[in-house]
Amino acid sequence: MRDLYHATGDEVRLFEQAHRQRLPVMLTGPTGCGKTRLVEHMGALLGRPVLTISCHDDLTSADLVGRFLVAGGDVVWQDGPLTRAVRTGAICYLDEVVEARHDSLAVLHSLTDHRRTLYLDRSGEELTAPPEFQLVCSYNPAYRSSLKELKPSFRQRFVTLGLDYLPPEHEIAVIATESGVDTAVAGRLVGCAGMIRQADAAFHFEPPSTRVLVTAARMIAAGAAELAAVQAAVLAPLSGDGALSDGLREIAAAALLPHPATERTAP
Amino acid sequence: MRDLYHATGDEVRLFEQAHRQRLPVMLTGPTGCGKTRLVEHMGALLGRPVLTISCHDDLTSADLVGRFLVAGGDVVWQDGPLTRAVRTGAICYLDEVVEARHDSLAVLHSLTDHRRTLYLDRSGEELTAPPEFQLVCSYNPAYRSSLKELKPSFRQRFVTLGLDYLPPEHEIAVIATESGVDTAVAGRLVGCAGMIRQADAAFHFEPPSTRVLVTAARMIAAGAAELAAVQAAVLAPLSGDGALSDGLREIAAAALLPHPATERTAP
Amino acid sequence: MRDLYHATGDEVRLFEQAHRQRLPVMLTGPTGCGKTRLVEHMGALLGRPVLTISCHDDLTSADLVGRFLVAGGDVVWQDGPLTRAVRTGAICYLDEVVEARHDSLAVLHSLTDHRRTLYLDRSGEELTAPPEFQLVCSYNPAYRSSLKELKPSFRQRFVTLGLDYLPPEHEIAVIATESGVDTAVAGRLVGCAGMIRQADAAFHFEPPSTRVLVTAARMIAAGAAELAAVQAAVLAPLSGDGALSDGLREIAAAALLPHPATERTAP
Amino acid sequence: MRDLYHATGDEVRLFEQAHRQRLPVMLTGPTGCGKTRLVEHMGALLGRPVLTISCHDDLTSADLVGRFLVAGGDVVWQDGPLTRAVRTGAICYLDEVVEARHDSLAVLHSLTDHRRTLYLDRSGEELTAPPEFQLVCSYNPAYRSSLKELKPSFRQRFVTLGLDYLPPEHEIAVIATESGVDTAVAGRLVGCAGMIRQADAAFHFEPPSTRVLVTAARMIAAGAAELAAVQAAVLAPLSGDGALSDGLREIAAAALLPHPATERTAP
Amino acid sequence: MRDLYHATGDEVRLFEQAHRQRLPVMLTGPTGCGKTRLVEHMGALLGRPVLTISCHDDLTSADLVGRFLVAGGDVVWQDGPLTRAVRTGAICYLDEVVEARHDSLAVLHSLTDHRRTLYLDRSGEELTAPPEFQLVCSYNPAYRSSLKELKPSFRQRFVTLGLDYLPPEHEIAVIATESGVDTAVAGRLVGCAGMIRQADAAFHFEPPSTRVLVTAARMIAAGAAELAAVQAAVLAPLSGDGALSDGLREIAAAALLPHPATERTAP
Amino acid sequence: MRDLYHATGDEVRLFEQAHRQRLPVMLTGPTGCGKTRLVEHMGALLGRPVLTISCHDDLTSADLVGRFLVAGGDVVWQDGPLTRAVRTGAICYLDEVVEARHDSLAVLHSLTDHRRTLYLDRSGEELTAPPEFQLVCSYNPAYRSSLKELKPSFRQRFVTLGLDYLPPEHEIAVIATESGVDTAVAGRLVGCAGMIRQADAAFHFEPPSTRVLVTAARMIAAGAAELAAVQAAVLAPLSGDGALSDGLREIAAAALLPHPATERTAP
Repeated sequence: MRDLYHATGDEVRLFEQAHRQRLPVMLTGPTGCGKTRLVEHMGALLGRPVLTISCHDDLTSADLVGRFLVAGGDVVWQDGPLTRAVRTGAICYLDEVVEARHDSLAVLHSLTDHRRTLYLDRSGEELTAPPEFQLVCSYNPAYRSSLKELKPSFRQRFVTLGLDYLPPEHEIAVIATESGVDTAVAGRLVGCAGMIRQADAAFHFEPPSTRVLVTAARMIAAGAAELAAVQAAVLAPLSGDGALSDGLREIAAAALLPHPATERTAP
Repeated sequence: MRDLYHATGDEVRLFEQAHRQRLPVMLTGPTGCGKTRLVEHMGALLGRPVLTISCHDDLTSADLVGRFLVAGGDVVWQDGPLTRAVRTGAICYLDEVVEARHDSLAVLHSLTDHRRTLYLDRSGEELTAPPEFQLVCSYNPAYRSSLKELKPSFRQRFVTLGLDYLPPEHEIAVIATESGVDTAVAGRLVGCAGMIRQADAAFHFEPPSTRVLVTAARMIAAGAAELAAVQAAVLAPLSGDGALSDGLREIAAAALLPHPATERTAP
Repeated sequence: MRDLYHATGDEVRLFEQAHRQRLPVMLTGPTGCGKTRLVEHMGALLGRPVLTISCHDDLTSADLVGRFLVAGGDVVWQDGPLTRAVRTGAICYLDEVVEARHDSLAVLHSLTDHRRTLYLDRSGEELTAPPEFQLVCSYNPAYRSSLKELKPSFRQRFVTLGLDYLPPEHEIAVIATESGVDTAVAGRLVGCAGMIRQADAAFHFEPPSTRVLVTAARMIAAGAAELAAVQAAVLAPLSGDGALSDGLREIAAAALLPHPATERTAP
Repeated sequence: MRDLYHATGDEVRLFEQAHRQRLPVMLTGPTGCGKTRLVEHMGALLGRPVLTISCHDDLTSADLVGRFLVAGGDVVWQDGPLTRAVRTGAICYLDEVVEARHDSLAVLHSLTDHRRTLYLDRSGEELTAPPEFQLVCSYNPAYRSSLKELKPSFRQRFVTLGLDYLPPEHEIAVIATESGVDTAVAGRLVGCAGMIRQADAAFHFEPPSTRVLVTAARMIAAGAAELAAVQAAVLAPLSGDGALSDGLREIAAAALLPHPATERTAP
Repeated sequence: MRDLYHATGDEVRLFEQAHRQRLPVMLTGPTGCGKTRLVEHMGALLGRPVLTISCHDDLTSADLVGRFLVAGGDVVWQDGPLTRAVRTGAICYLDEVVEARHDSLAVLHSLTDHRRTLYLDRSGEELTAPPEFQLVCSYNPAYRSSLKELKPSFRQRFVTLGLDYLPPEHEIAVIATESGVDTAVAGRLVGCAGMIRQADAAFHFEPPSTRVLVTAARMIAAGAAELAAVQAAVLAPLSGDGALSDGLREIAAAALLPHPATERTAP
Repeated sequence: MRDLYHATGDEVRLFEQAHRQRLPVMLTGPTGCGKTRLVEHMGALLGRPVLTISCHDDLTSADLVGRFLVAGGDVVWQDGPLTRAVRTGAICYLDEVVEARHDSLAVLHSLTDHRRTLYLDRSGEELTAPPEFQLVCSYNPAYRSSLKELKPSFRQRFVTLGLDYLPPEHEIAVIATESGVDTAVAGRLVGCAGMIRQADAAFHFEPPSTRVLVTAARMIAAGAAELAAVQAAVLAPLSGDGALSDGLREIAAAALLPHPATERTAP
């Protein structure tokens, strides 16, 4: 099932309380820890559609709220995704919001305080958000190489929920469910990930996410050897220049050694 | 009531005197100390509509004064929010003006001296502001990481009113009124905020605003535990990388311990 | 009276001589010393309209000379303010010219030498300025934090007139006339300004202009206490981060103590 | 034959497994080691057309997904190459993806996770990719002078396959087949390349690719002397300022000396 | 007379020889030494119109060669000044060419070698320059603060003529002729300029040009005192921050002392 | 004769072989050593038209391949010079290709490998180059002050031919033929150039090209003295700030001394 979400704390309850109070939510946590999945889960739980916007350096406020387009010689207004979300009372999810230009975020101010209003300066329209509308943002505070930071006054506008990796037994279940490998294979992958995540503090790379473990498991399900799958899906993406690979490959090879009691069966 | 404003000094009287003398006003103070609320309060008091513009890096002068648009094959002028405010004698509020590009602020010069005139260079129009029009700007001088600064010649064009946090008894009243929690809960939140604000000088973060205390109180009103609500609404937004959380969490936990005489009742 | 101008030297005579010789004029001096007012005064004296352009980083040469606009499916030329000034023989005043982009200033070259011609490259038109046309620019050489500088070859195109603050008795008269306070109040404000201007060399802030003294006086005329008015109009704008306020407040408080012989009467 | 591809490892099998699991693939390896050729080979093997996009600094997301164009007075949407690839179930190959602007890559996010959906924000359309669609990217991690790097969260979205130079006997066969020279000549060229590639660690230049060896062989096939062909096709491009040429020319001259047993015959 | 030009060397003859050989000319020398005047003089001498373009950072190649404009719903080509000069066989003078963007200068390449052809890439037209057409550029190599430099390959396309200040007797004649002051006054101004120009090496400012001396003389002719005129036209423009003024004022005051034998008569 | 080209090595033969093998060519060498002339020579030899594009910082890929233009209310595609060259099987010459933006060069990738195809992404067209089409680029690796460099992967796409100055007897013949001076004069100019070129290593300027010697000779043919011609055409362009002139002038004066046996005759 797609919207299976494994809570790691009280984030589902706090999210639901914030929604009931019409408060915007900020999700923080490492890459692939399940932020996007939580938003989709909450959309299903609350019965609201989710509208996702991947933030980046060149996302203008017009990309968010809309712009005038020429059609048949006349100018017509076309709503952007944020405006559509406000009109339809959707959950609007700004993924990796720290990547967006600060000026683009300014249009969010009046939506995130008691006004709950979107000002379309260019068209002159003012939209008051319906109670069902909710703004959700996310970012990864552990992404150390980022030069950008969210302004304190912006962060203070949100109820902030910090997520973390799934506990091992949940991560194993997710991997087995999503890839079709058995839990012994999934367990070895999670064990391998655990060792690499511990090495993170020393090596300063972005630790592997549940997503890459699922990818490795799907490669295994398609016939790849475990070490080859881990190399392609987990180890190779860790470093941009391949320098860390040898030490990590030894860690991975050791972690993948099947324990006697959990001998791997071909998928 | 929305326009309930608790004055912390003589700012309401000075604002009214500046308005009577047709002088523009600059509001300074920490995030969430009530600058926006004061402007809304003064709008109600003076019987003038308030037009708010959130400033940012890409706000062009055309965004302020207006631009030509193509419609039906012809070009028609469309007023920007500043021009609309001048025409209608509104209070035009430029929030976080220090974020704006200096060139965009140049159009304000002739509105902030004895001319009180807006020059629409592109349309060739000159608008003399009616007596009711007033320009109000705000910025947060304590936001230490800002690379921008207002030019002295710009700051000298305004009557500057410095605001500060509400006194505790007022802040408690605002929180209780806006969230529905009782004053004992609100008192613990204000006490907690006071301890964190004192720690500000050492930690160099943006101290928590009345707004985040209201947010925490609304989470509590929705059923969240006090410490969880403070963690999500007050503590987590303080730091971009989560490094300060542990020490602050202890401070908050201690501050939230219900005193015997003010035992918390469920909302 | 608005065009009352108090000369501090021979600037009115030199300005008039430059006008007679069809030479452009550059005004230099601290913020608020009266540069804009001198230009308006000379416009009245010489019987020419004054067209003011506030310079900034994004002022393009098209903003100065004009551009093609689409109207009814055709393209029509629209004069910019500089072109209008040349056509009508006005005084064209470029305020804070150092803020303009150098390329925008290139269109001024042919207007500031013996050619006195404006080339409208885009429309292919050449306009020879009538004898009444005069270009006037201004900048503040004491604004220490400015990263920009005018090119020597540009500065050499102008007759340069250096202005300074008004002498005390003139400044008192201006303040009393423009605000309605009596000369005793105005005298205390000028005395206060004098002490702060002396502190300038040590503190490196932009010293208070006559304009802020008039603002303070108007606040007093509206009922504000003298120290509160000076705090809001004179002291608070001096520094972007409020750090200088305490020492200055003491200076101001001492300067505002009414002398026995000049006891303040309510305005 | 064009789509003759010599595998250097298990990359063909892993690529096919990733395709079966609908996972995007990232190819890494030195310039000219065969990344483009592998993609073309896989396209033929999997029976899917390949759509190649050379990435660069100014490739906008509109260049990828499409834009509105004016035609006959109306605005019509025109698909970009990525959108065409999604609609037709092609393999979309982003060559040298590290050169692209990060914001342009943001549109790939929803195509590279479980959503497999392309959001055309400007036209408001959502395209779910058919099973045959596959995204393939490539970059050269050994290109040391690059200032850009792919974000970890982006790299983790791909199955990463590292390629390397062909083994000598395969490289000789490719060169002979593609240029028409005999295998003795091709062998001398490969031997020459091997010596230069070993010198790479000391000299820090980009080592010669199979492609430049084919080019040299084609020059020889057209009548050029071997050393002249190697100089023009292999040595001269190695360095931007010619400084390395003398030492390399000696290495090349030595490597090209025909061995007695393999005396070169004219092509 | 306007086109009176005082040669300081053999520049008129060399210019004429270059014109006869259809070679482009580069003029170098300090600000105001007469580069523009030489071009105008040569235009009169050779019977060719002179078309002047002041170069700057934002001059695009389209500004030089022309662009498509919309008129009546259709697109029509409009020649830029360079194209007009080529069509009419004029002298095209690019003033301060070092200020132009290098890319804008690329269109000059084919006009400055044996091709003498202007390629209008956008309109697809090729214009071969008539024999009368000549390209002339100028720049000031002594302008030390310039960050830009002309590329050697660009400089090598021109016959370079270095100009210098006029010899004193010529400069006196020019000043007297152009301002109406007598030669005694003009002599004192030239003597004053000489002393300041010698101080240049120590002070590193741009030395005063003949133009500023004419300006001072015109102010004197309009009634200004000599020292006041020199202060406004010569000394004040030398420095952007006024720091050099005191020492220079003493030098100027000494230089302007009328010698007994050349007692100044009122103009 | 215009297309008289003096080969300095085997570059004509290698160029012809590359053309026969449909390989792109990169020409390197000092400014004015004859790169452009070689391309024109090869165009005549191979019977193909040459289409030259001067590269610069703002040359967009649209400038190369073409763009949509509005005409009569509709949008029509207009080929750029590269596209025209591909369609007509011309030699397309990108002069000083190192000056181009890397992204503009990306469109060349598919034209310079086995695909020989130009992808017009915006119009959706794919053009396969006819056998006669050849891409030729040039750059000057000795231009030390250049901040840009061609990427190794780009350089490896070309057959690289290094050119150098003409041998003296050829250079003398070219100068005499193109300017009309006798060979004695031409010989002295070449001797002078030789001495300056030797001084290059010490002085780090761009050494004089054959082109500037022809320019000097044409000035002499028009009546200029030899030293004056060399000063204007050869020495003055060497340095941007004139600092090197004195030493070079002595070298030049010595080199131009007519030897008894080759007494100069007036042209």
